[in-house]
Amino acid sequence: MQLLLDSGSGGRASQRLIADIFVRHFDNAILRRMDDAAVLPLHGPAVMSTDGYTVTPLEFPGGNIGTLAVHGTVNDVSMMGARPLYLSCAFILEEGLELELLDRIAASMGEAARRAGVHIVTGDTKVVPRGTCDKMFITTAGLGELIAEPAPSGSLARPGDAVLISGSMGDHGLTVMARREKLSFMSDVASDSAPLNHMVEKLIREVGEIHVLRDPTRGGLATTLNEIAEQSRVSCLVEECAVPVHENVRSGCSLLGIDPLYLANEGKLICILPKERAEKALDVMKNDEFGREAALIGEIVPAEDGRPRVTLRTRMGGTRLLSMLEGAPLPRIC
Amino acid sequence: MQLLLDSGSGGRASQRLIADIFVRHFDNAILRRMDDAAVLPLHGPAVMSTDGYTVTPLEFPGGNIGTLAVHGTVNDVSMMGARPLYLSCAFILEEGLELELLDRIAASMGEAARRAGVHIVTGDTKVVPRGTCDKMFITTAGLGELIAEPAPSGSLARPGDAVLISGSMGDHGLTVMARREKLSFMSDVASDSAPLNHMVEKLIREVGEIHVLRDPTRGGLATTLNEIAEQSRVSCLVEECAVPVHENVRSGCSLLGIDPLYLANEGKLICILPKERAEKALDVMKNDEFGREAALIGEIVPAEDGRPRVTLRTRMGGTRLLSMLEGAPLPRIC
Repeated sequence: MQLLLDSGSGGRASQRLIADIFVRHFDNAILRRMDDAAVLPLHGPAVMSTDGYTVTPLEFPGGNIGTLAVHGTVNDVSMMGARPLYLSCAFILEEGLELELLDRIAASMGEAARRAGVHIVTGDTKVVPRGTCDKMFITTAGLGELIAEPAPSGSLARPGDAVLISGSMGDHGLTVMARREKLSFMSDVASDSAPLNHMVEKLIREVGEIHVLRDPTRGGLATTLNEIAEQSRVSCLVEECAVPVHENVRSGCSLLGIDPLYLANEGKLICILPKERAEKALDVMKNDEFGREAALIGEIVPAEDGRPRVTLRTRMGGTRLLSMLEGAPLPRIC
Repeated sequence: MQLLLDSGSGGRASQRLIADIFVRHFDNAILRRMDDAAVLPLHGPAVMSTDGYTVTPLEFPGGNIGTLAVHGTVNDVSMMGARPLYLSCAFILEEGLELELLDRIAASMGEAARRAGVHIVTGDTKVVPRGTCDKMFITTAGLGELIAEPAPSGSLARPGDAVLISGSMGDHGLTVMARREKLSFMSDVASDSAPLNHMVEKLIREVGEIHVLRDPTRGGLATTLNEIAEQSRVSCLVEECAVPVHENVRSGCSLLGIDPLYLANEGKLICILPKERAEKALDVMKNDEFGREAALIGEIVPAEDGRPRVTLRTRMGGTRLLSMLEGAPLPRIC
């Protein structure tokens, strides 16, 4: 069965699509009221984030556009030191889309939301004529309540802080690339797409004083560290040999001539906090199902001449500047 | 200048696009922090809504996709009896898009947000390759605080209630249709796109006991009244001659053979409340700049045999069933 334009009309056909697919898979008491907006209990200051998802292919090892749309926005809200509670979800769908595919993706979104402990409370569906969008785009917005005081921010890194990451780099980016280019020799890579909110809540509760939390998605670790360095007006030293990269990702990247530190991750976080709390934070991460390979990868130092830089100490003992991503190694990665 | 794929990479080029266009036009203290999410003061239960906008053409008399994306979501939050405060905004842009057009649309979004008194606090930009989306899609999510207790809901219409609308029907739908089909003889129609939050706040504060607030967008007045009737398990009687329709819209519709009651509106609301409060509510609406043509158009009656119906008493004195929109008269209207 293929999606018809009528299903985006706002009339009877839209109602059927919403009831048959979205309400069924996302089911919760707030969504079931079917008003144009949702009334939500919330305690403490609100935290809001949004992301549009345009990944191609729509499905890949380790996830699909729907799980990404849930995890990505859950993670963005978490990175502010908040507990994500609610998601809105807007679909832009191409006429002719296979309804089975839409159903499969909606089902996995419902499952991802339940696992993360958030509710999809309101949404919207537009159907556009064939050729005016590539199958499916999803935009989620996330709402949570602030639980860290003060909230972590990209501008709070301080010289003397330790830089931790919660696991291996590059898995998501390489997986999407391999699947899109049909690189069959890379069949064993899988996206790391995962919800990090439970790990973040434990870090806030059990470790405290976290200066920066950020998920290194588009542009990868290198770009995200540069953003933090600029926002905080500090420099960052990274030990290349301390950065976990799975063997299959490392060899795939070297074959393709790309650097895993610039590849997108969808289930990893960077945590920057005072050095003396680093060990405790590593413990908390390693005890979380999505942080088993967490590592201390570097430190924050003053910005020489006031110019923020990210420097990599290579395996060979030299150093090289890790600059921000300039161009796009690959569009539509998330 | 045309938009390059690089601008969606998450790297340096993305930062430039965000700073040059979005931060400049949407400027506010929360957005300027440039974190992945925004921390927002909020009092009372939160109200959240989202809509994706895919309208074509992107610009039309009375507005553009950007003003629609601001007004539409501001209005959806308002319809829950809430004061909209914050918007998130996610752009999906096609490679090659004219940057001047993007700048113009962003500027009018900033202006629309200021007029409505809301802040665009967080956002996202994806750029997809040529041919994978039609120029520009925008998804906004809105966050507000509940100010009506109890909140109006589509399920609260009661027999004896009066049905009011805040102005003329069909302007937006006919304008987009005329512009798309290049119907030059309809050059004098214009979209009614407008923010209704101030009118809603006055209705709540000065009139009170509002059962239903709903904006008749996709599917028009006829479809929205049917939705309300079904949610509330009541029927609705509408006086055709009481429904305001501008003369140019009426003649355009009769030329094209379409019914203005099924056309989308983007700056109108339906207000259902106890009959004895109708006059006061009409006063409030008429004193608002976007409600000058407000009218009492009908009443809520019990659903005969338990089957909710919307019935139109025609100008000729007969009655006809006003059913829900079945198909799409026109896709991509909003």
